[in-house]
Parts: sequence; C-alpha cells; structure tokens
Amino acid sequence: MDERDLKRVVRDVIGTGQTLDDCAVIPCSGGLLVATTDMLHETTDFPPGMTGWQIGWMSAAVTLSDIAGMGARPGIVLLAVGLDRGERLREILIGAKACCDSCGAELAGGDLDAHRELTIVSSGIGFADTGWVVRRQGAVPGDLICITGPLGRAQAALEGYADYSRALLEPIPRVREGTLLARAGVSSMMDISDGLVISLYDLLEANACGYSVDSGKLPLLEGVHAEKSREYSLFGGGDFELLFTCRPDLLPLPDVSCIPIGVVIPEQRVLVDGNDVPCQGYLHTWNHDDAGE
Amino acid sequence: MDERDLKRVVRDVIGTGQTLDDCAVIPCSGGLLVATTDMLHETTDFPPGMTGWQIGWMSAAVTLSDIAGMGARPGIVLLAVGLDRGERLREILIGAKACCDSCGAELAGGDLDAHRELTIVSSGIGFADTGWVVRRQGAVPGDLICITGPLGRAQAALEGYADYSRALLEPIPRVREGTLLARAGVSSMMDISDGLVISLYDLLEANACGYSVDSGKLPLLEGVHAEKSREYSLFGGGDFELLFTCRPDLLPLPDVSCIPIGVVIPEQRVLVDGNDVPCQGYLHTWNHDDAGE
Repeated sequence: MDERDLKRVVRDVIGTGQTLDDCAVIPCSGGLLVATTDMLHETTDFPPGMTGWQIGWMSAAVTLSDIAGMGARPGIVLLAVGLDRGERLREILIGAKACCDSCGAELAGGDLDAHRELTIVSSGIGFADTGWVVRRQGAVPGDLICITGPLGRAQAALEGYADYSRALLEPIPRVREGTLLARAGVSSMMDISDGLVISLYDLLEANACGYSVDSGKLPLLEGVHAEKSREYSLFGGGDFELLFTCRPDLLPLPDVSCIPIGVVIPEQRVLVDGNDVPCQGYLHTWNHDDAGE
Repeated sequence: MDERDLKRVVRDVIGTGQTLDDCAVIPCSGGLLVATTDMLHETTDFPPGMTGWQIGWMSAAVTLSDIAGMGARPGIVLLAVGLDRGERLREILIGAKACCDSCGAELAGGDLDAHRELTIVSSGIGFADTGWVVRRQGAVPGDLICITGPLGRAQAALEGYADYSRALLEPIPRVREGTLLARAGVSSMMDISDGLVISLYDLLEANACGYSVDSGKLPLLEGVHAEKSREYSLFGGGDFELLFTCRPDLLPLPDVSCIPIGVVIPEQRVLVDGNDVPCQGYLHTWNHDDAGE
C-alpha cells in the first residue's frame, strides 16, 4: 500500500472533515482548539550527526509548525519518547523545551517507553478565536500565492551545503508569522513540510482552484547554483516556512516577510512557469540501510 | 538508567507541575483542558494473537482511561501510527474509532509513518469545568481507598485464564465513572494502569499521607484460586479501573460501582494487611525475544 492508499483508508474510517488540515479543529467554549501529532524516528527523520538537543528541537518544531500553519497560538506540547538508550533523554528534552519556549508553548509532559529505534511523537494543542483559524481550503482565483521565507535551504544542507545545516537541523516554526497572517485574513494556509510542490498539491486537494508559480520569484540560495537553488526550492523538503494565499491588496503586511511567488488560477492544476508539474519531492537522503530487518 | 532515573530527568527539565497526574492540565477560557499521550508498540504492548481491531481499541483506551482518571470528559483522540505493514491500518483505525465512539470521543486524525515495529501513540484531549478535575494529590487521612471494579482480570488472562481475555484485550475506559466521581467530589484519583500497588506508590508520591489496603476486600476472581486472585489484584497490570479516595460519608454513590478496599493513613507508607509492601508489579509476560537487535 502506498501513502495514497493509506490516506484513503483513514478517510474511509474517520471521514475527511478533520484530515485535510495541518491540525484537527475542535470548538471549545467560545473559541477553537487545534490539535496535531507527528511521529519521527531515527532511520527516517534524524540524520546521522544530529545531536540529542537538535532531535528534541526538531520533534517539538514539527508540531509547533503545524499549529503555526493554522494561524493558532501554541499552548502545550506533549512528547512520547521511545528510547533506545536512556542517556539520550536529557538532551532531547532540553532541546524540545528550548523550541517550545521560543514559541511561547509549554512542554507539558508525555510518555516514556523503551524502543529498539529512537521514536518520538510530539503532540500539540493550540488556541484560536472562532473565525481566526486558517485552513487549507479557502483560496479563490486571483489570490496571490506567498511564502514566508526562502525555501530549499534544508535540502541544500542535505546535498552538502554546510552553510545551510542549521535550517535543516534547527528549523524555526513560523508561529509569530502564522498568527499575524491569520489576523490579517489570508484565505488559506499550511506549513511546507514535504516541499513546495507537494504542498501545492495538498492545497489542490482542499480547493476547487489551482496554483501557478513563477519560479523566478523564488529567492535564490546564496552560494548555490541558480538551477539547483530553484530545484531545491520547488522539490526539497524540510523547510518550515508557511505557504498561504491572500487577496493582492492585503500585501504588504507589516512585521511579516511575505514573498509572492505566483497566483491562484481557476483550473485545478499545479503549474510552474506555465507547465504542469508532477506531485513530487525529494526522498529523504539520509535513510539508513533497512535491509535485513 | 532505570525508569526512576528517567523520571528524574523529566522532572529536572520540565518540572513536576504537569508530570504528577495522568494528564497535563491547561486553563482554557473558563474551563480546563486535560491532555495526555501514550506510546504502545508491538513487542511490549500487543500480545501475540491480538487482532488489529483490538490493537486499535487498546491504543485509544489507554488515553481515554487517562482522561477518565482526571474525571474529565474526553473530546478528541489523535493516533500517530508507525506501520510495519500498511494492510494493518484499516482494522486498527476501526477498533480505535469504536473505542472513541463508546466514550463519546471523536477520533480526529493523526499521523502515518512507516516503522519496523508497529508503534502507536495515541494522544487525547478532555474537558472539565474549573474545580472539577481530580488529581492524584488531595487525599487526607481517614479517606476511604476505593476502586471502580474487580482487579487482576487482565493478569489472569495473561496467566492463561481465557475467560478473562476480553478484560486484557478490550479494556473499557471508565469515562462515565470518572466524570461521576469528579462531580461527587472524590479527593484524589488516577487510573490503574500498571497494577494496584504501583498505583498506590504513584499516589504516595503526590501526597503527604499513606495507604493501607485490606486485601480481603479485593473482589475474588471467579475460577481463580483465592491466593492467586489476591496476587493478581494487587500486582497485576492491564486493568483499566479507577483508583480513588473519598470521605467515607460520600458513599454509596448512585450509578457508580465503588468498592472500598482500605483507608488513607497519616504515615507515608503503602500497607497491605498491615504490612509494608514493596513497589512492584508483574512484568509484561508477552515480551518477544529482543536478542540480536
């Protein structure tokens, strides 16, 4: 079964209402709660050389980024940690707490277990006023497609550009930007986890319109050849910027970096420089050899 | 590092405020949220022969039981599922949804991942009015110690008493009982996950008093020798009953089965039939062989 089959199973069993967005949304005495959970484990998510502190930071960051993608304020993060070696716990927790602190969230506990492979699941709760949560659904033709910062840096780091390794190993969840964008009234939003093009396809799934990106508007990565930079920006994973759509007259926004990279179109297609682009990203390149398991 | 060392690390880094109870507690517009997360995985939590449906049920049940242990109403459950084989997903989700439905909770999504060993983390959010959450802290000498039902059944099933296998494989979270007990004003509460004696030690840690249990008051398990029954009830894990303390004049309570099994004492000790009893439970007995990993 591939990922698409698995998604279909999920939607068969629990419906589509809560599964289209970065978080589930629950009404709660006059406001809204958002909630999300993310599983990370050593062989696929923690590149060799990543410190325990960075593993902890990353584990909290993926969840805080999902909350940011809804435009919500993070409340708490819980970590379920399956440890291969108990000695790793302290640095992981310190890193996770640092990331939570940086976003105004509380690391509020979790669960500990022994596991053959280091496995961390972070779950988070965020808060929003009713009407101020931004979903993937909501774009209309004519809206601008924007990002909150340069893309492709995490991928560049994976490809050996050491200057970008911090972007890969200590990504910054765009919590401040998410809440400001929600308040400004952007029409749809998500965090870019698996790459820009894959994220545009995720938006496509939730909307009756399409997305046309001008790759010339993607910021070039300093020190990376222009063609590679464009490729990493379109298809590279690991960036924690936000992807959103908004009416053109909404920009510029004070206090948020918003980079327009294209426009929402009536046809349900994802175009880059006028050409259809397939739904693809890079595979993680740090996979350990699973053979023999 | 043993479990005690690991707990110390957690409390060093994130403090004790949120780590003493079954759930973290967060104020939320006039009420309280409770949140919890639990990691389960094949080698230690899913006995051979357990169906996918039961694995799903169990995964939701552990989290719903933690919410019940606080006296809160469950809202949503999220599942992060690390799958060894995609084919297992559907039954797992159907089982988890059945358990959520039975408790009035919504299975609201989660995360999917590939994993060498089936690993499921369920996270849950519950709601309570301010003042109606019950914590582990709160017992006073003279309070009764009570349970919501017979203990030791899951352990009996593990020891081969097939009549009790449903108690082991499809435990019922005591959500209804938990909310009724909270409303009645019990003084402290938790769910019994790892065994009665271990749970009493957990309560000890949160209180300035002790616990004296009369093993003659533990309901005997039909078909199990009295001595074994007593042993399973004291030390066996896997039961999802609630353990609580309350003023003697609070009982009986309409609509909740409350079995008094002892009394809260001023000395910080755990006594069974007047004798100190060590902090111990059974080890899981279905552990696969981890050698060679």
